[in-house]
Amino acid sequence: MSSDRQKRLCITDTTLRDAHQSLIATRMRTEDMLPLTRAIDKAGFFSVEAWGGATFDSCIRFLNEDPWHRLRTLKEELRHTPIQMLLRGQNLVGYRHYSDDVVDKFVFLSHKNGVDIFRVFDALNDIRNMERPMARVKDTGAHLQGTISYTTSPVHSVSGFVDLARELYSRDCDSICIKDMAGLIMPAVAHELITGIKDEMDILVDLHSHCTSGIAPMAYEAAIEAGIDILDTAMSPFALGTSQPPTESVVASVKGTARDTGIDLLKLREVRNECLKIRNKYEGLFTPVAERVDSDVLIYQLPGGMITNLVSQLQDQDALDKLEAVFDEIPRVREDLGYPPLVTPTSQIVGTQAVFNVLTGGRYKTISNEVKDYVKGLYGKSPGSITTEIQKLIIGNEEVITVRPADLLPPMYEKMKEEATAAGLISKEEDVLTYILYPAIAPSFLKGERTAEPIPVAARKKENSLSLP
Amino acid sequence: MSSDRQKRLCITDTTLRDAHQSLIATRMRTEDMLPLTRAIDKAGFFSVEAWGGATFDSCIRFLNEDPWHRLRTLKEELRHTPIQMLLRGQNLVGYRHYSDDVVDKFVFLSHKNGVDIFRVFDALNDIRNMERPMARVKDTGAHLQGTISYTTSPVHSVSGFVDLARELYSRDCDSICIKDMAGLIMPAVAHELITGIKDEMDILVDLHSHCTSGIAPMAYEAAIEAGIDILDTAMSPFALGTSQPPTESVVASVKGTARDTGIDLLKLREVRNECLKIRNKYEGLFTPVAERVDSDVLIYQLPGGMITNLVSQLQDQDALDKLEAVFDEIPRVREDLGYPPLVTPTSQIVGTQAVFNVLTGGRYKTISNEVKDYVKGLYGKSPGSITTEIQKLIIGNEEVITVRPADLLPPMYEKMKEEATAAGLISKEEDVLTYILYPAIAPSFLKGERTAEPIPVAARKKENSLSLP
Ligand SMILES: [Co+2]
Ligand SMILES: [Co+2]
Repeated sequence: MSSDRQKRLCITDTTLRDAHQSLIATRMRTEDMLPLTRAIDKAGFFSVEAWGGATFDSCIRFLNEDPWHRLRTLKEELRHTPIQMLLRGQNLVGYRHYSDDVVDKFVFLSHKNGVDIFRVFDALNDIRNMERPMARVKDTGAHLQGTISYTTSPVHSVSGFVDLARELYSRDCDSICIKDMAGLIMPAVAHELITGIKDEMDILVDLHSHCTSGIAPMAYEAAIEAGIDILDTAMSPFALGTSQPPTESVVASVKGTARDTGIDLLKLREVRNECLKIRNKYEGLFTPVAERVDSDVLIYQLPGGMITNLVSQLQDQDALDKLEAVFDEIPRVREDLGYPPLVTPTSQIVGTQAVFNVLTGGRYKTISNEVKDYVKGLYGKSPGSITTEIQKLIIGNEEVITVRPADLLPPMYEKMKEEATAAGLISKEEDVLTYILYPAIAPSFLKGERTAEPIPVAARKKENSLSLP
Repeated sequence: MSSDRQKRLCITDTTLRDAHQSLIATRMRTEDMLPLTRAIDKAGFFSVEAWGGATFDSCIRFLNEDPWHRLRTLKEELRHTPIQMLLRGQNLVGYRHYSDDVVDKFVFLSHKNGVDIFRVFDALNDIRNMERPMARVKDTGAHLQGTISYTTSPVHSVSGFVDLARELYSRDCDSICIKDMAGLIMPAVAHELITGIKDEMDILVDLHSHCTSGIAPMAYEAAIEAGIDILDTAMSPFALGTSQPPTESVVASVKGTARDTGIDLLKLREVRNECLKIRNKYEGLFTPVAERVDSDVLIYQLPGGMITNLVSQLQDQDALDKLEAVFDEIPRVREDLGYPPLVTPTSQIVGTQAVFNVLTGGRYKTISNEVKDYVKGLYGKSPGSITTEIQKLIIGNEEVITVRPADLLPPMYEKMKEEATAAGLISKEEDVLTYILYPAIAPSFLKGERTAEPIPVAARKKENSLSLP
């Protein structure tokens, strides 16, 4: 397969999903996406990541927008470019497991409304949590991208990730994504992992990283060398910081080489100009901290968003002076829990417990319900084992499940549909899913009682024109 | 020499010179450098670039600081880390050629006051403009770093740059710097050029780039692969944008590999924390534009600072609508002039003439004196030839010199010293050089009549704490 390493590099642009999720808390509105989408559609991307992840939640919670309507609208504009969504395995676009009948409906309707490529991941890399949605994606005929949630720990290794790739490959994935949500993959590791997968499997490999630690562009270069097929990038006005490396730079970096993307920089310039307009509108949401390289990420090995969340959790408790102590506690909690990768929802679970352990004056004096459920196996199998002591400490004599968590969930679609219909909430099939996924918000949203959050006005930053003679 | 490619990667940190020159127009004051310098000195850098370039000009013009005093002060703090300066060949730290006796004094006194490494470049890569200062650096016993000013054009090629490296090598340079001031070197080219030099010459090679186009971190990764010895980086609060890639990220990217820098990330964290304090103080000088990737740089192949300058030149003339026309004209002027690399002073010469050509309604209807001097050969030999038509158009029948420009400059040191002494300006030998280099500003500066420009107050940017549940 070494000839693959000389072929065209493909680009998945994330501007419509991960980039604004990372930089402006997923607040980009559909109306702003439209002119951008038209420019994007001419660029020649392999795909655009434009749906899933936190966009569903944000649409109904903050923007008073129907996520399904957004998807259909984007689909009308994107005539040449496949739409990719990020699907959290059995969690879909929520934060807990859903029963299989809900998963089935969700995948079916996502595809029907416009999703062409499904990127499916599980926070614990527990393939059982990915199997059901993956099988349904194959049923629809869409492109199935299986995902490795990348992390570092004593129980994670390149060969372990290659094993996972093999499992995904054997389940008929059309491509494999290495999802490096914390932006921690080192160039040499990226090279080894990509080579490891491609040496053995005839499958497209995608690298998805974040610039939080400043390593991602270097890892991307190493990935190009190693023969990566697809790189995830964001247009420059929404790139860097906690977002992806810039699309234009990656495209330019291989211009005229064997890995040329075939994408025209002048067409990207039009996309960029649309992005600049949007950026201008949302300037008040950008935070300097999200845009700068945070070298603490290198020391604490935590995703950028997680650090921001911890800071605000501690601020709320007037305990910001405990931040270092929490940073020190997190690796210990993570070890106790068998080293889960830190990504939604495990990053929240580990972070919150570490805060409890520090603030309540004793480790596991207060234990969150999520940690209890985690130790019970209700999120799936932990990557490393959990000691009997920790298990006892956290759940006492309660039972640990060994089955797939969703096996314990009875079908709920029809029941919820009836309930929502009776409440007068349903005007289309998709509304049932909205109701099931976000039962607290969906009623007011579906009744049209919510309003869009205003976009904060930016404190105008002076544009200096200092220059030396 | 392939074993070199497996040895420790060295780091030159540019925070004290290029980083703040690139991001805040060289406005960092010595008092702020001091606590930072103490932290830097413990980090284990190969060197710190801390003097030369625009710092000399900025010290006396804007900061009311004696550049020589800064150098000595830094030297006292930097006990373990060599100080590097950027020397513009026969231009020293000014914008025109100086006579050899001035060059001799300048190099001698720079070394005496604390410079350990001299990076010597010429905007035209005309080695004759570098020979005199290079010979003097060798006399002092300091480390001599010869420089390739990297650019792209029909008359520039990797093999041409390797030829220049050979010339530098034969003149006893201790290392060679590839200076990519526009941040345009592509990963594949970096690899080829570094390999080309190192395959043939037993010499340390340094890559210096800027993140303006977003390519630099990728080029650095390719350089590491190719066996680069030294990379120029800036601490994260002063990195990216028009500055260098982040020191912490580059150090982390090779941790545990054969190219490990040996630098401790926890020590870098202390340096980073000092930088954050400084950044806070100067926040009002940072411009969003300088900090973001500018993908136009990829299309126009212009250094970021040059674009900013053109915008402000055109704004002054109420002709910002002519920007595209100027962008189109620049490559033509550059072609007319034999494709000079665009770096001080050629970037200013080419940019200003392009503005004239567009605004005065005819090419070369108005011609700057600098362009005339350039065509006469007074800046050195142009990389490509200039056609007879262009020559006629610009200087008519005036003569083109073929000698080294400084050969035409009579000694001036003693005369200027007498003049300045008579005016009561001189209290130490170094003041004579200050006077010679900046005759317009030096008198008021040396008489203590200038004041430091205030630091503008930042428009506070709201720190949002938006986060999804
Ligand atoms: Co991501
Ligand atoms: Co520079």
